[in-house]
Amino acid sequence: MSGTPTRSFKLTLAYDGAAYVGWQRQPNGPSIQATIESALEPLAGGVAVPVVGAGRTDAGVHALGQVASVRLPTTIDAETLGRALNATLPTDLRVVASTEVPSTFHARFDATAKRYRYRLLHGPVVSPFEQRYAWPVGAELDWAQLEALAQPLVGSRDFAAFQAAGSDVHSTVRELFTITVRHGPPGELASHPSAGVTTVDVHGSGFLRHMVRIIVGTLVDVALGRLPPTAIEDALERGERDLAGRTAPPQGLFLMRVDYGSGA
Amino acid sequence: MSGTPTRSFKLTLAYDGAAYVGWQRQPNGPSIQATIESALEPLAGGVAVPVVGAGRTDAGVHALGQVASVRLPTTIDAETLGRALNATLPTDLRVVASTEVPSTFHARFDATAKRYRYRLLHGPVVSPFEQRYAWPVGAELDWAQLEALAQPLVGSRDFAAFQAAGSDVHSTVRELFTITVRHGPPGELASHPSAGVTTVDVHGSGFLRHMVRIIVGTLVDVALGRLPPTAIEDALERGERDLAGRTAPPQGLFLMRVDYGSGA
Repeated sequence: MSGTPTRSFKLTLAYDGAAYVGWQRQPNGPSIQATIESALEPLAGGVAVPVVGAGRTDAGVHALGQVASVRLPTTIDAETLGRALNATLPTDLRVVASTEVPSTFHARFDATAKRYRYRLLHGPVVSPFEQRYAWPVGAELDWAQLEALAQPLVGSRDFAAFQAAGSDVHSTVRELFTITVRHGPPGELASHPSAGVTTVDVHGSGFLRHMVRIIVGTLVDVALGRLPPTAIEDALERGERDLAGRTAPPQGLFLMRVDYGSGA
Repeated sequence: MSGTPTRSFKLTLAYDGAAYVGWQRQPNGPSIQATIESALEPLAGGVAVPVVGAGRTDAGVHALGQVASVRLPTTIDAETLGRALNATLPTDLRVVASTEVPSTFHARFDATAKRYRYRLLHGPVVSPFEQRYAWPVGAELDWAQLEALAQPLVGSRDFAAFQAAGSDVHSTVRELFTITVRHGPPGELASHPSAGVTTVDVHGSGFLRHMVRIIVGTLVDVALGRLPPTAIEDALERGERDLAGRTAPPQGLFLMRVDYGSGA
């Protein structure tokens, strides 16, 4: 394929994370990254194409708006690339948008913010249609209380207590812009009239490993009385993982959107 | 367990039909019926308990409100029975309500009507979160046109053309009370902003095998221009399966509710 120009693309991806070991390539099962790279290879004349993701979603975590950047030798346009990928990718992984971008575009380095949503399910019976996409916490929680509890996390904070044990990063300071908690009626396929859904939306400049899930687990533990009301502030202040709550399970978490300041 | 009184229960069930061969016991895979019967047996002192379902949903068809009747020798109350079943049933099959009923109650014979919903998905990309629960038909359809097209089916009609080939029933006359078509915005997990959902709700006294799916397939085929606008009336009049449209795929169909005139 010598002579074929190299072009750069921004792919927006949606996936059901249940069948994947997460974004990143791993020896123990299929990853989103490897699945996309395999689908790209024949479109790049058999050349292996590395894919860069905006964020490394963990095993079982879903995405509605993950972003990946790729460079490949091709003459096809962005829309055709998206359609060609969707023709071979498994149906639980879709390219929802595909645009050509400058060769300098980098999905991870250029991301200025990310939005995550965590879904909590209430009610006495867990709907078969929600079990894959929410954390069933039984009793209804006071969503206004959850939102108020979360506000000390907003701003530039040291989230050392809110990352997976064993993480190794230069700094544990991150900035959260907003945490919004809403409560909605059961969806169309709820199957039980008393099953409401609480969504926790977190918008921030960057996230540590498991950060959203530990934030949500801590909020739920405080709301259920398993942790004292001061747990969030204590954990922020002392930076110890043990002071925060459970890590909420992966199936309730969705990477909703990645923001790029440049408008790319 | 001699001496234990026999009690009758009405169970309301929700299930994701993807992993099942349908309601009815079959040699080639797990059925809803067999799964519930297996879960009931230990609760009935090891005695096999036959379960009667209101309707025989096909392989891959879902339910939010299927109804089953059971009689078993037990001293536990209805609510405890429901909880005990949910403790052992797989998570894609749930008892959403359990009530004690007179011993004469029969889930199939006493049903006076059923409500089915069929979900059509639109938009250029099929959401990973909708693919299991809708039929992707691409372009938006004119839902008002679909509803108007369906109205000749309302009333007591001979649905011979709208049943699975090879069916063997005494009469192919059934009564439909209403067919309602609505169009909604994409759900919370749609993953593509242009992905709307059209729901076709059918309420009737009884249904032939594949009847709702052939009705929906025919409506879609007419809307897409694959069949003439007169297809529904021609098929009703002549009673030939070939005059109706495709059988819509099972994953878009939901048994929503079973009505019992007595209020049981």
